[in-house]
Amino acid sequence: MKKYQRLAQQLIEQIDLGVWQPGDRLPSLREQVVSSGMSFMTVSHAYQMLESQGRIVARPQSGYYVAPRAVSKKPAPPARVISDESVDINTCIFEVLQASREPSVLPFASAFPDPHLFPLRQLNRSLAQVSKTASAMSVIENLPPGNRELRHAIARRYALQGIPVSPDDIVITAGALEALNLSLQAVTEPGDWVIVENPCFYGALQALERLRLKALAVASDVKDGIDLDALAQALATWPVKACWLMTNSQNPLGFTLSAEKKARLVALLAAHNVVLIEDDVYSELYFGREKPLPAKAWDRTDMTLHCSSFSKCLVPGFRIGWVAAGKHARRIQQLQLMSTLSSSSPMQLALVDYLSTRRYDAHLRRLRRQLAERKQLAWQAMLRYFPSEVKIHHNDSGYFLWLELPAHLDASELSERALAHHISIAPGKMFSTSGAWRPFFRFNTSWGWGEKEDSAVHTLGDLIRQMLK
Amino acid sequence: MKKYQRLAQQLIEQIDLGVWQPGDRLPSLREQVVSSGMSFMTVSHAYQMLESQGRIVARPQSGYYVAPRAVSKKPAPPARVISDESVDINTCIFEVLQASREPSVLPFASAFPDPHLFPLRQLNRSLAQVSKTASAMSVIENLPPGNRELRHAIARRYALQGIPVSPDDIVITAGALEALNLSLQAVTEPGDWVIVENPCFYGALQALERLRLKALAVASDVKDGIDLDALAQALATWPVKACWLMTNSQNPLGFTLSAEKKARLVALLAAHNVVLIEDDVYSELYFGREKPLPAKAWDRTDMTLHCSSFSKCLVPGFRIGWVAAGKHARRIQQLQLMSTLSSSSPMQLALVDYLSTRRYDAHLRRLRRQLAERKQLAWQAMLRYFPSEVKIHHNDSGYFLWLELPAHLDASELSERALAHHISIAPGKMFSTSGAWRPFFRFNTSWGWGEKEDSAVHTLGDLIRQMLK
Repeated sequence: MKKYQRLAQQLIEQIDLGVWQPGDRLPSLREQVVSSGMSFMTVSHAYQMLESQGRIVARPQSGYYVAPRAVSKKPAPPARVISDESVDINTCIFEVLQASREPSVLPFASAFPDPHLFPLRQLNRSLAQVSKTASAMSVIENLPPGNRELRHAIARRYALQGIPVSPDDIVITAGALEALNLSLQAVTEPGDWVIVENPCFYGALQALERLRLKALAVASDVKDGIDLDALAQALATWPVKACWLMTNSQNPLGFTLSAEKKARLVALLAAHNVVLIEDDVYSELYFGREKPLPAKAWDRTDMTLHCSSFSKCLVPGFRIGWVAAGKHARRIQQLQLMSTLSSSSPMQLALVDYLSTRRYDAHLRRLRRQLAERKQLAWQAMLRYFPSEVKIHHNDSGYFLWLELPAHLDASELSERALAHHISIAPGKMFSTSGAWRPFFRFNTSWGWGEKEDSAVHTLGDLIRQMLK
Repeated sequence: MKKYQRLAQQLIEQIDLGVWQPGDRLPSLREQVVSSGMSFMTVSHAYQMLESQGRIVARPQSGYYVAPRAVSKKPAPPARVISDESVDINTCIFEVLQASREPSVLPFASAFPDPHLFPLRQLNRSLAQVSKTASAMSVIENLPPGNRELRHAIARRYALQGIPVSPDDIVITAGALEALNLSLQAVTEPGDWVIVENPCFYGALQALERLRLKALAVASDVKDGIDLDALAQALATWPVKACWLMTNSQNPLGFTLSAEKKARLVALLAAHNVVLIEDDVYSELYFGREKPLPAKAWDRTDMTLHCSSFSKCLVPGFRIGWVAAGKHARRIQQLQLMSTLSSSSPMQLALVDYLSTRRYDAHLRRLRRQLAERKQLAWQAMLRYFPSEVKIHHNDSGYFLWLELPAHLDASELSERALAHHISIAPGKMFSTSGAWRPFFRFNTSWGWGEKEDSAVHTLGDLIRQMLK
């Protein structure tokens, strides 16, 4: 093959790969000469050949462009949920989450609240502010443990709840998920036993799997939360190293542990010298009069790593979370320096700016009101359209509802059928390795309620009825 | 203890913890009433008590403020490098990196190039642009594998080097470090053997440790790079699963593998069905006429995961990197969804905007020129001040020099002594677990060269002379 033919073939490959899309300008002859090291003649030959084949188009004074495709590719259908038992939980979770991102799919499976609930304009204003003031050295200043002012602002929010946390005990992370993962890694070795709830946030199960830890899943009730007697028994029986729990607005059940249970939980763990990794990402999304305390408020022995973020209540896209890690803060910084190095510097600065405007609490009040309203609307639609055999476990915080089909039905099958109608739900099997939650599913109620949503719940109801036959 | 005394004590604890610093405004009486649930009288009593103790100051019409401290705390001295053999490598690395961040310390140990080399104004302009255009839904759109346009722009840079990479094979990550870590995790199981260079980037050693992998460190030469005969032998002897190498401007040695060696490397690995994780973060920092190809350019069997980022050549603070992962792209997205979820959305958008201005290549040309000049200046100062027993291993890319003390000296000791003079260097022991590199150190030459830097090299020379006595 001649040189120019090789170059032409290379360009065709690149076009087929999607590197250059129809309408894209190709590198100029001169640019191509520089980058390929070939002569002008060779490059020019290659382009002429592609032009004669109709693959590219020359525009005078402008350059070469990729020709429009004769037949446009069909967009891929939304990924299907594979309900085969042999599929590991990660693949199942990945499929459901990917499906819920398709713009054509109603994302009731999503773990994110509706992004339109967030103060985009003010956050963008803070971003603009950072673009005016960010200095070259801010990169270094915002390395782990993270921006000083931001850690300070977070410490003050703890202080307002009467929880003494020093800014030096806080490490800023890429969302709460990194905080939780680093915390777990900081206090365990592969093979250790860790307690989780059953059902629990799938991120906990994934983290255990990734770090080769063994799970003890303790039964949790949709109203009262984790069974502390069972927990006490587990602690007495197994050499447990850590406990990863959600104490407020638990995902997926929605319960908030009572103050008494939190106090007893902390005492139990302290008695067994077991670390609590507290996932508290929904703590701002209470519907009651008062923000519930985390279990950390009862901890007097520095045994609780409290993880949270701004992702669920202010701005998911910034990927900023934190852990109040006490004596573990240093180890967590080390682990972070080994894995992601740090959170992005402009994002930290933008949050500092936003928090300094003192609009955060007003935003949170509005957000809570909207979430409560939307949950109410979703619930009403379910009452209207779901057969009476479906049990709706209502709760008064956050944006999830936990639904229970009759015991012989499989929510994974419902999820699969619903996806065919461009509706996603999160089937119970995502939240446990035991398979015990097959008839359950989680439903995200944060989306603005309109005709489309209403009719989707109607469709879900019809699908359930078909499955009941 | 009465209620108001308890509140007062709580506030004192918070002040001692640094939650409220001297001069900070405390929550107002009203705010405190709301957050503590105590009565106005109780809160007011507590504040009055603290005022009478001189801990807080009332300012009419304004509120209560934390009183100035009688004796201000001394700033902590820069962390010392512990050269005790029993200290694990992570602690050593952490100490050195932390020390190099102290504003009072000359950061020759740093892995970052001088942040002043980056186009701050244009990047800030892109950030401002994002603040005008970012939509609520951009969060969802920029989830793994990451922003489509950004992956597209990266694929085009591969295409300009004649390397066919589809945008769909690229996953955007939190810097190259996350890309490398996820890649390693995607292709190994705990207990697997992995080949690294000796010496190598400490991040590779940390990742191996974290993922419980076994290291085979293959000798690398400061001029020619990794010993391929030794590599071939290792591949023939051990069941190696992956190979983590730097082919261009290796850290810490500085070599760039020749095209012949890269071709042979890829062929060798393919013959043994071993994955190459290619760390190519310095590829844009060549001083020659042409950008060197990565080993991936020779890969015909989709066995190379090519990792790079914008952190070393454009903007460290954004924390945006990527991996061209081919068939492993899906697995890497899954792993990312489990650990950090995604890279921050505004940072991805800002990069897309910056790259669309077509200023990137002009910036890179200027950056390369500046780095070459600064390396030259540092080298000249070393020639001037270092005793002739010190060997300076020059190289023509990137911003590191690799220095060799006489065999009986320990660079960790030099590092310790230098820190007492507020000068940091990166001792050889950071780059290997074998201890074989004790007399070596890495020196970051990217900093603007002035009197302070010159005199620091002078001091280093004197310290080495003292050690030689």
